[in-house]
Amino acid sequence: MQRTHDTARYTEGRPDKFARHTLFETPRFFADVYVLGPGQHQAVHRHEAEDKCYFVLEGRARVATGAQRHEVGPGEIVHCPAGEEHGVENPGPGRLRLLVFMAPHPRAAQLGW
Amino acid sequence: MQRTHDTARYTEGRPDKFARHTLFETPRFFADVYVLGPGQHQAVHRHEAEDKCYFVLEGRARVATGAQRHEVGPGEIVHCPAGEEHGVENPGPGRLRLLVFMAPHPRAAQLGW
Repeated sequence: MQRTHDTARYTEGRPDKFARHTLFETPRFFADVYVLGPGQHQAVHRHEAEDKCYFVLEGRARVATGAQRHEVGPGEIVHCPAGEEHGVENPGPGRLRLLVFMAPHPRAAQLGW
Repeated sequence: MQRTHDTARYTEGRPDKFARHTLFETPRFFADVYVLGPGQHQAVHRHEAEDKCYFVLEGRARVATGAQRHEVGPGEIVHCPAGEEHGVENPGPGRLRLLVFMAPHPRAAQLGW
């Protein structure tokens, strides 16, 4: 498996929903780049046993975690603990690019590990 | 626990060795900012059951993982898989700041979780 990525290369979005680009994944974690156009979002959801972090590479993000709401920009990071509802949206006007970590990998079993 | 951090605030180094600033930690992962002055390093070591990622916030990093050597800069990320020797050094001349993820947390038991 490739050991390095330049996150700057992952800029491609999708017209219908936010785009995910997987950088690394093992049973223990994944690291993805998410690309959200203005107005796009990842709906609020919950993982019972996994922690997630959103780190802003580019743009502005509105992140929900539990009852909290955070508006963050480049260099800022938000932790969404296991068991807590969370989601993210791009309020625009620019593109939003996030480095996303989740641990452990929520689909470890499905992926055959 | 605090749910957001601005990684730009974590710039303080140490004269004797590299500095760690813990952002978030649970049994499942930690996220730290490491600050390495020119010539400082994290010695090569191994975690049998934990994956680590180094993401460059500022400066240049030389990362060893197994037999591979990578020189990376801002926006680049390196994955050091569980069981593989890894380390990082700052070749200078500037400060190196890294966002570091490890999963699961290598000291979960010691921390009383």
